[in-house]
Amino acid sequence: MAKQLVFGHLNPDTDAIVAAIAYSYLQNQLGLETEAVALGEPNDETKFVLDYFQQPAPRVIDQVGDQAQEVMLVDHNEAQQSVADLKNVTITHVVDHHRIANFETAAPLFYRAEPVGCTSTILWKLYNEHAIEIPQKMAGLMLSAIISDTLLLKSPTTTDVDREAVTALARLAAVDYQDYGLKMLKAGTNIAAKSAAELIDADAKSFDMGGHQIRIAQINVVDLPEALTRQNEFETAMQQSNQDNGYELFLLAITNVLDSDTTMVVAGDENLQAKVSAAFNQQIEQNRLQLPGVVSRKKQIVPPLQEQF
Amino acid sequence: MAKQLVFGHLNPDTDAIVAAIAYSYLQNQLGLETEAVALGEPNDETKFVLDYFQQPAPRVIDQVGDQAQEVMLVDHNEAQQSVADLKNVTITHVVDHHRIANFETAAPLFYRAEPVGCTSTILWKLYNEHAIEIPQKMAGLMLSAIISDTLLLKSPTTTDVDREAVTALARLAAVDYQDYGLKMLKAGTNIAAKSAAELIDADAKSFDMGGHQIRIAQINVVDLPEALTRQNEFETAMQQSNQDNGYELFLLAITNVLDSDTTMVVAGDENLQAKVSAAFNQQIEQNRLQLPGVVSRKKQIVPPLQEQF
Repeated sequence: MAKQLVFGHLNPDTDAIVAAIAYSYLQNQLGLETEAVALGEPNDETKFVLDYFQQPAPRVIDQVGDQAQEVMLVDHNEAQQSVADLKNVTITHVVDHHRIANFETAAPLFYRAEPVGCTSTILWKLYNEHAIEIPQKMAGLMLSAIISDTLLLKSPTTTDVDREAVTALARLAAVDYQDYGLKMLKAGTNIAAKSAAELIDADAKSFDMGGHQIRIAQINVVDLPEALTRQNEFETAMQQSNQDNGYELFLLAITNVLDSDTTMVVAGDENLQAKVSAAFNQQIEQNRLQLPGVVSRKKQIVPPLQEQF
Repeated sequence: MAKQLVFGHLNPDTDAIVAAIAYSYLQNQLGLETEAVALGEPNDETKFVLDYFQQPAPRVIDQVGDQAQEVMLVDHNEAQQSVADLKNVTITHVVDHHRIANFETAAPLFYRAEPVGCTSTILWKLYNEHAIEIPQKMAGLMLSAIISDTLLLKSPTTTDVDREAVTALARLAAVDYQDYGLKMLKAGTNIAAKSAAELIDADAKSFDMGGHQIRIAQINVVDLPEALTRQNEFETAMQQSNQDNGYELFLLAITNVLDSDTTMVVAGDENLQAKVSAAFNQQIEQNRLQLPGVVSRKKQIVPPLQEQF
């Protein structure tokens, strides 16, 4: 059987990169031949993680049909968040913790989704179910992914299973996860050196909501007011991106990872903006919304929008 | 939390009924409050099974929104195979062994799919993973579902895991599965007493293939030539069903469960018939195709059609 490729979503975050590495390793231990690849370069946080645990970054691909017939998806399932030529290959496995949408197969497959904080939490369960030992380095990588997705277990997406996984993986990795986690999160929040165009694209996902193309990006920071001094720059970049990519609406969630607060900047169609305003029951002022306590795109931003659209 | 309903697909077969009963029991053991229901009356085979293991048939419902906010699906995921008002409720769990299509949620959920022969095989794994004991009666029901879906482990959908599950469940149920299985399969093949309209609707599923509405029914028999003496009756009923329900094409697979052969009767749009002919690389003669070795709609009938459409 030809080698299968395993990959996470476009604009990969730490979980998208790590889950591919961890699931590929697990499948290889179980007897398949797989390679973890990525649909983009690691971000600053992920670079910190890979450096810390001395793990090379996965090879970056932008199409898959030329090198594999079969693939496994981690940390995503929606076609628009995946490789461009996904239709040309067969998806045999998915491990994910997101809603299911814009996903279709011709044949039965392995699909493992759970409503937990991180794909790597599900992978931790899979290693245990298959009684495959988690090497120290792999435990560190998976721990990092869970810390990243749950903002050190503070996001409302966090479940008891994530907490269990963090405790178990921290022990296997032999790290103090609180101390390590803060360093890791801060490594991902250095926005000063980046252009607005880079920042609004680094952790951005496209959604089809009621037939409208909506882009939702998130930037993690440790100083919200400082980040908002660049609001004009962000808006210009968001409008440009709408124009270039056909998005009708661009939402940028700027999240303080220490205080768990978000300010959302809005650019695009006025009628759709009204729906955003309704979704969060708040007037948009100076093109922004205040979302105290909001840190999770998946759990606190997408569902009210989905409902409204 | 309000009671959740658990159900299999429309036109329920043995797995659709049994998997709902077995998954509901498992979830209740794990602390949730659920009830197994069905989207139709049990067929002859399922009646035999329920009688044999003295299990009452689940309550039949035709809509769900008036009695539950949250549901769990077993043995299906495609909206057109489910309850009519599925959109009005939240799907929190799916356990299935089919392809994924026409399925979308607003939020993350538990989704467990594996490409095995029967949903009840996956449930057997889930009981084991959660270390929940399978009562003798439940083992008998789950065993019956696997025998039904795999035609006594002879269908090409059968995997090693199905074989393992059958061995383990037969021991727990204390039955000789070969002997019991033949009796059970034969109980489902008595077509003489039924009208053509009943027979073409008993195990029928709707598919959207390339925008075309296609109905695929299957009848299990032990004597193919005898069944084909009623071909004209079947064709009339299929044409009537096309007209009444807006199907463009109706395919009826008549399968000999002892010899593992199928004859497929075709009714509907000529252009679509040509695609069926191409899918199976065979001329349609007297409105039928010979499909030796074919017993599985999911594995041997739907995929070539899907490819062609």
